[in-house]
Amino acid sequence: MALKTPEQYKQALSQLRPNMYKFGELIQDVTTNPHTRRTVEGHSQLYAAALNPNYSDLFSTTSNLTGETVSRYLAINTSAEDMIANCKMKRKAYHLTGTCTGGRCAGYNALNSMWVTTYDMDNNMGTDYHGRLKDWLRYAQDNDITVSGALTDPKGNRSLPPSEQEDPDMNLHVVDVREDGIVVRGAKVMICGTAAAQEVFVLPGAGYKEPDKDYAVAFVVPKDIAGLTIVEARHPSDAREAEEGFDAPVGIGGITQAYLFFEDVFVPRDRVFLCGEFKYAGNAVMNFIMPYRAAIGGCVAGQGDVMAGAAALMARANGLSTKAFNERLIQMYVNNETTFGMGVAASALGKAHPSGAWLTNPMLANVNKVHVGTLPYDTKRITQDIAGGIGETGCLPSYVDFNDPRYGHLVQKYLKAASSAESRAKIARVIEWLTLGGGVPGCMHGGGSPEGAKLMIRLNSGLEESVEFARRLAEIEEDVPEPAAKK
Amino acid sequence: MALKTPEQYKQALSQLRPNMYKFGELIQDVTTNPHTRRTVEGHSQLYAAALNPNYSDLFSTTSNLTGETVSRYLAINTSAEDMIANCKMKRKAYHLTGTCTGGRCAGYNALNSMWVTTYDMDNNMGTDYHGRLKDWLRYAQDNDITVSGALTDPKGNRSLPPSEQEDPDMNLHVVDVREDGIVVRGAKVMICGTAAAQEVFVLPGAGYKEPDKDYAVAFVVPKDIAGLTIVEARHPSDAREAEEGFDAPVGIGGITQAYLFFEDVFVPRDRVFLCGEFKYAGNAVMNFIMPYRAAIGGCVAGQGDVMAGAAALMARANGLSTKAFNERLIQMYVNNETTFGMGVAASALGKAHPSGAWLTNPMLANVNKVHVGTLPYDTKRITQDIAGGIGETGCLPSYVDFNDPRYGHLVQKYLKAASSAESRAKIARVIEWLTLGGGVPGCMHGGGSPEGAKLMIRLNSGLEESVEFARRLAEIEEDVPEPAAKK
Amino acid sequence: MALKTPEQYKQALSQLRPNMYKFGELIQDVTTNPHTRRTVEGHSQLYAAALNPNYSDLFSTTSNLTGETVSRYLAINTSAEDMIANCKMKRKAYHLTGTCTGGRCAGYNALNSMWVTTYDMDNNMGTDYHGRLKDWLRYAQDNDITVSGALTDPKGNRSLPPSEQEDPDMNLHVVDVREDGIVVRGAKVMICGTAAAQEVFVLPGAGYKEPDKDYAVAFVVPKDIAGLTIVEARHPSDAREAEEGFDAPVGIGGITQAYLFFEDVFVPRDRVFLCGEFKYAGNAVMNFIMPYRAAIGGCVAGQGDVMAGAAALMARANGLSTKAFNERLIQMYVNNETTFGMGVAASALGKAHPSGAWLTNPMLANVNKVHVGTLPYDTKRITQDIAGGIGETGCLPSYVDFNDPRYGHLVQKYLKAASSAESRAKIARVIEWLTLGGGVPGCMHGGGSPEGAKLMIRLNSGLEESVEFARRLAEIEEDVPEPAAKK
Amino acid sequence: MALKTPEQYKQALSQLRPNMYKFGELIQDVTTNPHTRRTVEGHSQLYAAALNPNYSDLFSTTSNLTGETVSRYLAINTSAEDMIANCKMKRKAYHLTGTCTGGRCAGYNALNSMWVTTYDMDNNMGTDYHGRLKDWLRYAQDNDITVSGALTDPKGNRSLPPSEQEDPDMNLHVVDVREDGIVVRGAKVMICGTAAAQEVFVLPGAGYKEPDKDYAVAFVVPKDIAGLTIVEARHPSDAREAEEGFDAPVGIGGITQAYLFFEDVFVPRDRVFLCGEFKYAGNAVMNFIMPYRAAIGGCVAGQGDVMAGAAALMARANGLSTKAFNERLIQMYVNNETTFGMGVAASALGKAHPSGAWLTNPMLANVNKVHVGTLPYDTKRITQDIAGGIGETGCLPSYVDFNDPRYGHLVQKYLKAASSAESRAKIARVIEWLTLGGGVPGCMHGGGSPEGAKLMIRLNSGLEESVEFARRLAEIEEDVPEPAAKK
Repeated sequence: MALKTPEQYKQALSQLRPNMYKFGELIQDVTTNPHTRRTVEGHSQLYAAALNPNYSDLFSTTSNLTGETVSRYLAINTSAEDMIANCKMKRKAYHLTGTCTGGRCAGYNALNSMWVTTYDMDNNMGTDYHGRLKDWLRYAQDNDITVSGALTDPKGNRSLPPSEQEDPDMNLHVVDVREDGIVVRGAKVMICGTAAAQEVFVLPGAGYKEPDKDYAVAFVVPKDIAGLTIVEARHPSDAREAEEGFDAPVGIGGITQAYLFFEDVFVPRDRVFLCGEFKYAGNAVMNFIMPYRAAIGGCVAGQGDVMAGAAALMARANGLSTKAFNERLIQMYVNNETTFGMGVAASALGKAHPSGAWLTNPMLANVNKVHVGTLPYDTKRITQDIAGGIGETGCLPSYVDFNDPRYGHLVQKYLKAASSAESRAKIARVIEWLTLGGGVPGCMHGGGSPEGAKLMIRLNSGLEESVEFARRLAEIEEDVPEPAAKK
Repeated sequence: MALKTPEQYKQALSQLRPNMYKFGELIQDVTTNPHTRRTVEGHSQLYAAALNPNYSDLFSTTSNLTGETVSRYLAINTSAEDMIANCKMKRKAYHLTGTCTGGRCAGYNALNSMWVTTYDMDNNMGTDYHGRLKDWLRYAQDNDITVSGALTDPKGNRSLPPSEQEDPDMNLHVVDVREDGIVVRGAKVMICGTAAAQEVFVLPGAGYKEPDKDYAVAFVVPKDIAGLTIVEARHPSDAREAEEGFDAPVGIGGITQAYLFFEDVFVPRDRVFLCGEFKYAGNAVMNFIMPYRAAIGGCVAGQGDVMAGAAALMARANGLSTKAFNERLIQMYVNNETTFGMGVAASALGKAHPSGAWLTNPMLANVNKVHVGTLPYDTKRITQDIAGGIGETGCLPSYVDFNDPRYGHLVQKYLKAASSAESRAKIARVIEWLTLGGGVPGCMHGGGSPEGAKLMIRLNSGLEESVEFARRLAEIEEDVPEPAAKK
Repeated sequence: MALKTPEQYKQALSQLRPNMYKFGELIQDVTTNPHTRRTVEGHSQLYAAALNPNYSDLFSTTSNLTGETVSRYLAINTSAEDMIANCKMKRKAYHLTGTCTGGRCAGYNALNSMWVTTYDMDNNMGTDYHGRLKDWLRYAQDNDITVSGALTDPKGNRSLPPSEQEDPDMNLHVVDVREDGIVVRGAKVMICGTAAAQEVFVLPGAGYKEPDKDYAVAFVVPKDIAGLTIVEARHPSDAREAEEGFDAPVGIGGITQAYLFFEDVFVPRDRVFLCGEFKYAGNAVMNFIMPYRAAIGGCVAGQGDVMAGAAALMARANGLSTKAFNERLIQMYVNNETTFGMGVAASALGKAHPSGAWLTNPMLANVNKVHVGTLPYDTKRITQDIAGGIGETGCLPSYVDFNDPRYGHLVQKYLKAASSAESRAKIARVIEWLTLGGGVPGCMHGGGSPEGAKLMIRLNSGLEESVEFARRLAEIEEDVPEPAAKK
Repeated sequence: MALKTPEQYKQALSQLRPNMYKFGELIQDVTTNPHTRRTVEGHSQLYAAALNPNYSDLFSTTSNLTGETVSRYLAINTSAEDMIANCKMKRKAYHLTGTCTGGRCAGYNALNSMWVTTYDMDNNMGTDYHGRLKDWLRYAQDNDITVSGALTDPKGNRSLPPSEQEDPDMNLHVVDVREDGIVVRGAKVMICGTAAAQEVFVLPGAGYKEPDKDYAVAFVVPKDIAGLTIVEARHPSDAREAEEGFDAPVGIGGITQAYLFFEDVFVPRDRVFLCGEFKYAGNAVMNFIMPYRAAIGGCVAGQGDVMAGAAALMARANGLSTKAFNERLIQMYVNNETTFGMGVAASALGKAHPSGAWLTNPMLANVNKVHVGTLPYDTKRITQDIAGGIGETGCLPSYVDFNDPRYGHLVQKYLKAASSAESRAKIARVIEWLTLGGGVPGCMHGGGSPEGAKLMIRLNSGLEESVEFARRLAEIEEDVPEPAAKK
């Protein structure tokens, strides 16, 4: 069977060449390093879930390439049902890990995007990218690897295109094309879950024109490829990860974001899926963000579920009935179901692509992105509201102080309420984690900004059709045009 | 073919016994009376749409009884696709009529509800209701009739159940059971679209107990049945309907709500679908409101589309580019797509019932009800915001004044902007209609109140499961129970 | 004493030359005509309030011109306390009349604006406007007249300034300057409360430049001056005003908006307060809108108070305790107090002008305008939510049907709940009036649009100062300038 | 002069007996310990501001006891102007420190509360508390000390009153009353700014009855009094405080919250201001929270100003014009001015107390508490939205990695945009600090919860008066009472 066990996954990770740094230190083994092992544990749970009869329908599926059971994270999304299962899987993944498992999720969108994009390129331009991708995908499925996805370029001055930047490397680009492959230089930044990944799928940015064609490049590489240096970003409370105790409250999940520096990395030909076809760079991005913006609604719904549970736990630990909080708990679930439901709707109203892939509805996916950039902030606010002061920032002594031989008994005596001091402390730390810490995915800009989504909503809105509905109802015969632009 | 033409529909309506009143007058013919003809025109468009190749996939479908093409408004919803088509149909119906076509839509939900409910009753209690419903439905489909749905009882004192009301008629009830049928007394109030209906499908209320069993009754009757008196409710601007000109700006649509008084009405046995089975009254209501609360999201999305179109028209008529209003127009579409999308999601995540019907997802349907009771108010606000003062209440002289021989030229001179005075006046009137007048459906309480929906969200929220997610992540081993209720 | 009685006020109104039209008819006497008498009654209550010891501290004050007790509506606002009293007066005026009393309120802002503006003009340009205004104001106070304020021009094509309009009359302008006065032509539209006014205070628009200088004109005229024709705008339910019974539920208040057509009206010299000084037209508008945007918060708060009261009444009439609605009632008061409080704050943080007037804080006044264009819509929504279906649009038969000898008893039987049918019907009609009808002031655009307010918020925001706070805290030494505009 | 310099203040702090712990270590000197020196710097700036001519009108005032110039933080608030100055001071204090300076602000409210409460007690019960307070206050002003305020008890099981808790110490209480003073035991938790304080002013909880009278106690003690042990709470990123560089981006401000354990602390008689008068415990709390809930609006407005500035800085550093973000920047300022303005309004509409103090308006203060628990969350969301991905959680490598000799040049190369890498990094860190870190005050529950504020809004809402307004307008004569409670 193609599915690997958590142990097999971790063993494979351990064997990669160390090329990740944090706090000035080279991470020798991501499965044990305190700053990466939690995210590895989180991703391990995805492997366990695929093998768990309770969750296997979500976390695994049948490969359209081989007919074998494979991880859904490595499968082509071929129907509305598939895409809905993806939304549900992301919600469940949050339940299981308490955070983002971005090392697999962005990769899923990247490979699905390139499935469609390479198919179109080959058809229109006679290239052979689709076959290359199939080959790689068969290998990826066979080995059940974790593949992170990398889109975001440093970009430099946002008001200039890649080819006009003072430093040409501000967007990742091809510096040499050889018989057997290409050489790329540049960086991808804020890349989620790379610590837990075995390979990295790189996509270009959008909006490229002819002069930017060297920037139109997509490929996949092993994470430990020569020339790739990775620096982990810092989180508010990541110093706790090297400590003992409940201050880092979740051991089986953790978010990481990394900066990836490509210093003349050689990518073999059969791992290159777009190279110079600048008109398709935008398609690659669009085909990435549509399913992403739909399914992220499931992810933040899962986060909201856990927040509702944690808030209810704290209310009870405080000696209060959750009934007193019904109005607010309901609002949390309204928020959760809205982002989840809009993702489901975007899935259901998608359409089939000739390549066999299922394309998500762009209007609904983009509307969901707006909700995803708004509603979770409200849910966090309500979580802190219900939890009381102890759930707000910085209202609990450290684990060390909790256990101090001189005064730890005082901390514990006064933290006790309807539950033990330890339970209240753990709940408070989980709430901090969920609202200010390691459980907070970067929902605002993950998969692009809400502002970008709004532009696409405007493009997809069919305003002119709406105008015609109103004209017809009002029986207006005169033409009422958009005024001419001023000279 | 089962589908009727608009003309056939109107002819059938004309032949009903007059039993509707408004402003103290008996309405002789609803197809010509100024207070009812607009809503009849609106419903006529639904007949036209079913025959129009552009819309027939939405407005008609294949009968699961006969295999014939029938109106979707008379069809059993047998799949997620059917239910999604229902959401789309409601959105399109608003585009076509500029308002509610409640004479068919509530009936659709009523007959679908009783399809499921009678099936369950027959299976569990050995009754023969399902067969009776099938017979009636075959007749209804064959004649392509318009069937309104009637749920809301006057209720009297809301803090008392039906059987304890001072006046036993405050909820509609059975007063006699005979061999050949039953006799009912009471009223149904605020019933939408009755003016355009040929029959009325009556459902009971929910929450009934043994002493209330005479109140557990469902049936369908011709609108002109003996003993039924109907009084139309009044709208803010309905006096305009008897006038000439654009003050009643939409000729092809109009909302009506009626009070139906049943004074010992005899209902033949084969038109009775529930009678005394008080435990199923609640099911009948639930099975009604789930698809209703999903699909109403399509309806208010359609309303929002027309508002966006009207607002854009006014901006242009004022000489302004819609670009200046992009942020607000986008917000309108976010609102529209949210209620529409949540309905689609509730459809997609429904499940099959043994009777062959498709049951809508209750959580998502109820969340949508909350949005439907909130977002359209925001959309109306934005419409008035974009339109400027002329789109607010009462800022335009009457049609009579617009055309007055003494000063009408002044009104017209000063109303002219980038479009003609007449176009601006018509747009302003359509905006008034959409935000304050006849185009405003009763979304807040139609299909039940948002507050009721919130209770159901709480019931469906799975809070205890969320609590377990949080407990597991925080590694809390102690039980943290809900506190015991105070004595 | 300067204060007049309601009777004296109405008698004075009756003696004006008839020059107002509605529905094609000349209104002979505004105090008895069904379309104007309600608003006259509303304004009468302001006279009664000034003489009522409970309210006289709000509705009257001491003239800064004569030391006599005068109506606050005719007084110069000379302190924070005065301006706060103005906010409170507007809230109370709504309580007393159930609607807008715009016939005095806009006039108050107009005369206060010109007090400041003429003072500045005289000082800077050597004109003698301030003395003219003082003389007129002394006369107005002595006679305790009702003065409406008129700003809004028809404007024509919004993308063109007055002097470039195809029709030069699209903004009111001076067509002749004579020794003894000026002749003006044009219109003012959507002018509130003119029906109840004795004089009309006309202000120019803003943003005028040299070529527009004929449009920079301010003056005050008797409402019945030769050449002025007034056409009343139509409201959604104004046809009810000519009927009997509770369908027009409030007899002591009513909103009116009118179109005023000036066909070469001669204005005597001593009633002209700005004429050609185009640079001061903007000041006149700013000095008008600042106190207006502050105090309108009191007005909509009063509206919200009445909505909360009406919603609570309906809950009780339905047999329900208001306790069940606490969360929503609290939200209503949060909304009410926010618009009221922001007006108070804008008053408190104002500053003294050399003329003796008190200038409202522009930042807070404009922020309040944004709230005034948003929060009342939410309050209306909650009102309908609490009231249940009967409080929504069009869910109650007419007064005629309520009393019909054939079926009126049925309407009444079934409307009864915990209160009588008549009380429920009256409450429902008041709620309709407040949320869809005559009690809805044009808050969105009254005193200018929220969009205009937002521009002023941006101007007043002190963003660069905020940037410096952030720079200092982050210890950034480099300059981080706004990027140069693209060529 | 009573005002001390920052140096004098820090020197005085250094001389206190060490009794604070963090991370298991006794803090020897709060002015140099990495976990406390930033908050001490923040409070030092308040001393500097009082001596700075630009700010002295806000930060100092004239003592009503001595006529001398004293810190406003130690002055009795005697007028609306005083209270408005307090609101402005809090806004400015945030600008200066980038965070909460709770070590002085809660003390200000505590001493102002007890000024009023002791006055009333003495008058009604013949006690001599007011004189004791005056004496202490004179001493406090003479020495310009920083006094933190401590209200929150651990509370134990929230469903039980203090006297019924299993552990009687769950609320701080008197365990012995002696001739010369009292002995107290218990704890105060989540107390803000204690690290920077010289004394601690302790207030009781509210809602106490006769059996709880030992819990009704108010007093002030030196922070280093015998028997008092203090444990600092942990913040998300406080491990950074012991590091070099910009990861702890603000050197001149920092928030701390502490747990204070009173193990049989002796309080001399002249420092006790309430002891057993359980009916006044609630007054003490109310008199504390009213000015607190008003003025905290200024604090969060200051936070919002800095967020707007930081967001604008990042936009420019990214090479983008702030014009593209106008809509969102305006929304930030609407939020800021709303909490600030509502505090000003609560100040302006307060009233004089016989003791000479000025009482804040309770309705407006509580409405503001609701806004303070809501709007800043929206402002934070917008900050992250404008800033782009780099402003979200965990998207920037550490300072150590930024400067790493092996790959730091890569981090810097790719962080550069329209500004230097260092500036962008610093701005990103300040945004993290403001939205997820040390600059986030506990606004939700500081000064009590929004839920408690809502209860008070309901009590102050005047609903019955609103009901009467609606009744009068609708001409309803029947009584429509609240339904009797069910038996």
